[in-house]
Amino acid sequence: MVDVGGKKKTERVAVAVARLRMLAATLERIQQGQVEKGDVLAAARLAGIMAAKRTPDVVPLCHPIALSGVEVTLAPFEAGLEVRVVVRTVDRTGVEMEALTAACAAALTVYDMCKSVDRGMVIENVQLEHKSGGRSGTWDRTPPKPQRRAARKR
Amino acid sequence: MVDVGGKKKTERVAVAVARLRMLAATLERIQQGQVEKGDVLAAARLAGIMAAKRTPDVVPLCHPIALSGVEVTLAPFEAGLEVRVVVRTVDRTGVEMEALTAACAAALTVYDMCKSVDRGMVIENVQLEHKSGGRSGTWDRTPPKPQRRAARKR
Amino acid sequence: MVDVGGKKKTERVAVAVARLRMLAATLERIQQGQVEKGDVLAAARLAGIMAAKRTPDVVPLCHPIALSGVEVTLAPFEAGLEVRVVVRTVDRTGVEMEALTAACAAALTVYDMCKSVDRGMVIENVQLEHKSGGRSGTWDRTPPKPQRRAARKR
Amino acid sequence: MVDVGGKKKTERVAVAVARLRMLAATLERIQQGQVEKGDVLAAARLAGIMAAKRTPDVVPLCHPIALSGVEVTLAPFEAGLEVRVVVRTVDRTGVEMEALTAACAAALTVYDMCKSVDRGMVIENVQLEHKSGGRSGTWDRTPPKPQRRAARKR
Amino acid sequence: MVDVGGKKKTERVAVAVARLRMLAATLERIQQGQVEKGDVLAAARLAGIMAAKRTPDVVPLCHPIALSGVEVTLAPFEAGLEVRVVVRTVDRTGVEMEALTAACAAALTVYDMCKSVDRGMVIENVQLEHKSGGRSGTWDRTPPKPQRRAARKR
Amino acid sequence: MVDVGGKKKTERVAVAVARLRMLAATLERIQQGQVEKGDVLAAARLAGIMAAKRTPDVVPLCHPIALSGVEVTLAPFEAGLEVRVVVRTVDRTGVEMEALTAACAAALTVYDMCKSVDRGMVIENVQLEHKSGGRSGTWDRTPPKPQRRAARKR
Repeated sequence: MVDVGGKKKTERVAVAVARLRMLAATLERIQQGQVEKGDVLAAARLAGIMAAKRTPDVVPLCHPIALSGVEVTLAPFEAGLEVRVVVRTVDRTGVEMEALTAACAAALTVYDMCKSVDRGMVIENVQLEHKSGGRSGTWDRTPPKPQRRAARKR
Repeated sequence: MVDVGGKKKTERVAVAVARLRMLAATLERIQQGQVEKGDVLAAARLAGIMAAKRTPDVVPLCHPIALSGVEVTLAPFEAGLEVRVVVRTVDRTGVEMEALTAACAAALTVYDMCKSVDRGMVIENVQLEHKSGGRSGTWDRTPPKPQRRAARKR
Repeated sequence: MVDVGGKKKTERVAVAVARLRMLAATLERIQQGQVEKGDVLAAARLAGIMAAKRTPDVVPLCHPIALSGVEVTLAPFEAGLEVRVVVRTVDRTGVEMEALTAACAAALTVYDMCKSVDRGMVIENVQLEHKSGGRSGTWDRTPPKPQRRAARKR
Repeated sequence: MVDVGGKKKTERVAVAVARLRMLAATLERIQQGQVEKGDVLAAARLAGIMAAKRTPDVVPLCHPIALSGVEVTLAPFEAGLEVRVVVRTVDRTGVEMEALTAACAAALTVYDMCKSVDRGMVIENVQLEHKSGGRSGTWDRTPPKPQRRAARKR
Repeated sequence: MVDVGGKKKTERVAVAVARLRMLAATLERIQQGQVEKGDVLAAARLAGIMAAKRTPDVVPLCHPIALSGVEVTLAPFEAGLEVRVVVRTVDRTGVEMEALTAACAAALTVYDMCKSVDRGMVIENVQLEHKSGGRSGTWDRTPPKPQRRAARKR
Repeated sequence: MVDVGGKKKTERVAVAVARLRMLAATLERIQQGQVEKGDVLAAARLAGIMAAKRTPDVVPLCHPIALSGVEVTLAPFEAGLEVRVVVRTVDRTGVEMEALTAACAAALTVYDMCKSVDRGMVIENVQLEHKSGGRSGTWDRTPPKPQRRAARKR
């Protein structure tokens, strides 16, 4: 775990997303609160937040970080749900892994709660969208070229 | 957490994959053991195994399960790595979530170790490939139709 | 941690409750979903379930147990909420501690989400209501005598 | 998990208590060190301290906090034990939840170690007594009115 | 994590020890209960028990095991303490690692509580003494040859 | 957990070692990458790093610390392996326990992966080598006197 003791504590933000592709009927069921195991969106949000805090236990070389905020939102995306996570800290290293881990955990929780009716769901495009703060500065995902976008909309 | 006390303990297997798309240079660096933070493939394998064991902490409604085996392999996939996880148990409920969680953790670990040189990597297609055992029996992912496969090969 | 290896695996159930006394306005706010931090009841249910699974980490001498089911419900109780937890297992030792720990965690979660508007909330009467299974058999809480009940209704 | 990145790091203290009502014989047994499972008071103190550190794992929306001190004491209280917890930090958010969680864990540990002889024990009055530091300043529990105190002494 | 699903559940026991060499004054202080941080022996016992339960989180390839009993004792050993741990299970794989991990955690806890007065303490001879059960049968440590024993008594 | 809130945040370093004595054949097998369970050195390094982060869960009175760096190296030592851990932080309390816990976890991981061929391995001399920073300043282990060294080389 590389030494970050010489880095300054600065405000850092990371934004990550995960998309979970599912049957249209599954999405409808979630949105109408008809999933037997409970409120899927509330559970996924909490799972994301809790996973952000446990990132150093899941990703071996991650530093323990004093997270100052974690926000997890879920919104419909074609026939699926998009998880969007914003993590903030004032620390010596970035929170990209926390945001990505939270996004995975939220998507896995949706999968878990709906798998009995839609085992084929696919988590696609877990990816960093933005990071800022720290020595390496700001990074934003370049929007994919038109052709790639077409492919993704399969 | 639904009661599974009435279910029988049977042998259960789940297979999940995750694909991490990266720059060709990143894949090469990993394969040649030139990543500064250490042996990426060994770290990802261990992270996957450890995450499988912690699934009930990450996915809120998962039962604690007596895992009898977890196998994580990583193999090159076009310009990327495919993580493949096989989880086995002899218990009252399936291990799909353990396999999927392990696949995510392994992919996240690869991302973490290489992000300084390739922040744009994308985890694609975290998905169940196979499950067997238990009341709901065997399930295998239906291969995507030719057109979909084409799209995926972008 | 006493040796339970010689005990039989039997079906075991434990029921515990916790009551959280609060301002009437706080209860109303929770019930109408107006708490800023999110859906309190959904969060408390999940926190209870997750805490049941982590009981051996919280209570030093508790055995790790293969929980087969955990159910957490919250219902209004005068000017407060009553958490009720049912935990089930088929194992060598009982699940009273899991039920009590889950009840505490659910109540603590309600407190946490509402504390900015009602710091004086009190968790009262965390108690076992019922247990069955195992060598020591069934136990049910004897209803309190009339006088005690009066006192409790203060 | 609300963003506290804009708050100042200040000294913060929280004091919480929990009372565990038990049979007089149970209290005596604890005080005389005659409980088979070991030294109840020492175990409860440690369990409280360890639980304070794990609060963000138990209470979903709690921030990870750099605790600077945790003190857990147990003292007899009529026919029972009172757990008193003092938690201190120099951080951006308060430690009320850490103090309350530690108080619950200590009380649960006493229950666990004595339950074979007194299953009817009740954890009563888990409550914050004091907090100081931070934007919302100092808060002290208002002593209950005479009538309430009477009721509590049932 | 190798598949043990085909192994039988049998009774298994493992015994491990750890020796912590310290100044005579430190041992005396522990035995007379004069260590400022509290009851060292009680804390070490609990730490050992809790660590046994967390072994799969500490040792990457360890299976999660349904421990049926853990016993940790500490006894003086020349100018030091010997930790002795007995772990039992009825499961598909052995509990050697649980016993060794518990022995380390207990010794580390003693070190932690006394380090301000004796930073030079050394944990020596963390080792398995006995295991039984399972396909590989019973194993007992062969007593060291006279010459080795002499050396150890330095 | 003693209050460290009044201490200054300073750079602190701790170095600990653990030596694992094994059969010459076992060491050779590890060095040639012929251990069935995988790459022992990579696994031990990761286990050490992860354990450093979980120290407050393993050692009851340890403060949660913002580790800024953890480095675990393994090198042959006569017929055995020496684990060397360097832990760094900028915090209010030292990281000796993190270094020692990491050293134990790394050694335990080597044991676990090789125990089927060499159950008699012994973890010897888990000890602090150096600490610096903080009020108590720098401490270095005094090299053992010639006679002791002879004994150790048995």
